[in-house]
Amino acid sequence: MKTVDPRPIEFYFDFSSPYAYLTSTWMNELAEKYGRQVIWRPIMLGVVFQETGMRPLFHQPLRGPYGERDFLRTARLLGRQAVVPKEFPYVSLAVSRAFYWLEDHHNEVIFDFAHAVFARYFEDGIAPTTHEDVARLAIQVGVDPDKLIEGCQDPQVKARLKDETAQAIEKGVFGAPFIIVDAEPFWGNDRKDQIEEWLKTGGW
Amino acid sequence: MKTVDPRPIEFYFDFSSPYAYLTSTWMNELAEKYGRQVIWRPIMLGVVFQETGMRPLFHQPLRGPYGERDFLRTARLLGRQAVVPKEFPYVSLAVSRAFYWLEDHHNEVIFDFAHAVFARYFEDGIAPTTHEDVARLAIQVGVDPDKLIEGCQDPQVKARLKDETAQAIEKGVFGAPFIIVDAEPFWGNDRKDQIEEWLKTGGW
Repeated sequence: MKTVDPRPIEFYFDFSSPYAYLTSTWMNELAEKYGRQVIWRPIMLGVVFQETGMRPLFHQPLRGPYGERDFLRTARLLGRQAVVPKEFPYVSLAVSRAFYWLEDHHNEVIFDFAHAVFARYFEDGIAPTTHEDVARLAIQVGVDPDKLIEGCQDPQVKARLKDETAQAIEKGVFGAPFIIVDAEPFWGNDRKDQIEEWLKTGGW
Repeated sequence: MKTVDPRPIEFYFDFSSPYAYLTSTWMNELAEKYGRQVIWRPIMLGVVFQETGMRPLFHQPLRGPYGERDFLRTARLLGRQAVVPKEFPYVSLAVSRAFYWLEDHHNEVIFDFAHAVFARYFEDGIAPTTHEDVARLAIQVGVDPDKLIEGCQDPQVKARLKDETAQAIEKGVFGAPFIIVDAEPFWGNDRKDQIEEWLKTGGW
C-alpha cells in the first residue's frame, strides 16, 4: 500500500508561462502515482526576470519563433490543442491573487480554478486580466464571483503573492515551471521524465 | 527491412556546449535505429550568440548554478561521469577546424575524433585549444598529428568553419545542440524523446 510522503512537491509557475501550462496538465497525476502531494505556487515571473535579466521566451530573437513551434508541438504530444495567445505574456496578477484567496477560502476548487485559468489563456487565447474575467472563472468553478473579486483586493492577499514570489526567488526559482522534489530543483516541462525517475528512485 | 532514408539528420553543435556533449553520446545510435544517417556540424556558438544576445549557460545568473547541477545529473542518467570544466566555455576553433579537415581527408575517424574532443573537455576537464592538444587527439584516433595541425591552418578549412556557422544561422540555429530532422528543428538534449517520436512517426 502506498503511503503519502509527508513532503509535498513544490510547483512554481506563472499563469502566463506556456511550459507551466503544459506541466499543469500532468503534475498532480504524476505525483499521485508516487503517493505524493503537490503545492501549487503561482508567482510573478516578471519580478523574477528582473533578478535574472531573462526575457519572456517568445520575445527572444530566433528562440521566439522556435519556442512557439516547440510549445505547440509539445502540447499536441500531450493531447492539447493549444494556441499562442496574441497578447504574450500577460500580467497574471488578478488570477494569481484569486488563486491564493481561494486557497484560504475554497481550497477544494484551487486545481479546477488553475486549470480554468490556464485553459482560458492557452486554449481560448484570452488573457484573464479584468474583474469580469475573474468573475467568469469563479462561476466556472462554482464560487461566488463577487466574493472572489473582493478577495483579490484584500491587502493580505496582495501581500501573499509578493511574499510567495520573494520566497521562490530565495529558493533559487528563476523560471517556470520550476519543480522542487525533496530539495532537488527541476526547471522546465521537459524535466518530466527526470522528475518521475527522482520520485521513483529518490535520486541518482 | 529498413532502408536508409536519403535525408540525413543534421546535428549542429559547439564542442564547448555541455548539452551537445550529452547529445553526442546518443545521436548516431538513435539515428541508426531508424535507418538514418547524421551529419555532424561543429559551429562557433560565440558567433551565433552575437546574433541572439544569449550568454553561455553556466554564466547566467541563477540559471548558471542550476545548469551545472542539471548537466551533471543528466550526464549521470546517461551513464557518464562528466565534469564541469574550470575553463568554460572555451574557444573550440582548433578542434572544429580539425574536424572539417578530417571530414575531407580521414572521414572514417570523424566520430571517434568528435567523441575524443568532447571527452577531453567534459570528462577530463581540459579544454583542447593548442596545437599540442590537437596532436594528442590526432594520435588518439590514429591520424598523423603534423598533418592535422597543418590542415587546421589551411585557409580553406578556416573558411569552411565560418561558412558552416553562417549557414547554420541562416537555417535558424540559435543554440546547441540543434538537430534538424526533415526540416523540423529540435533544440536541446532534452528533445531526444521528441526526435525519436518524429523519426518513428514522421511528425504529429
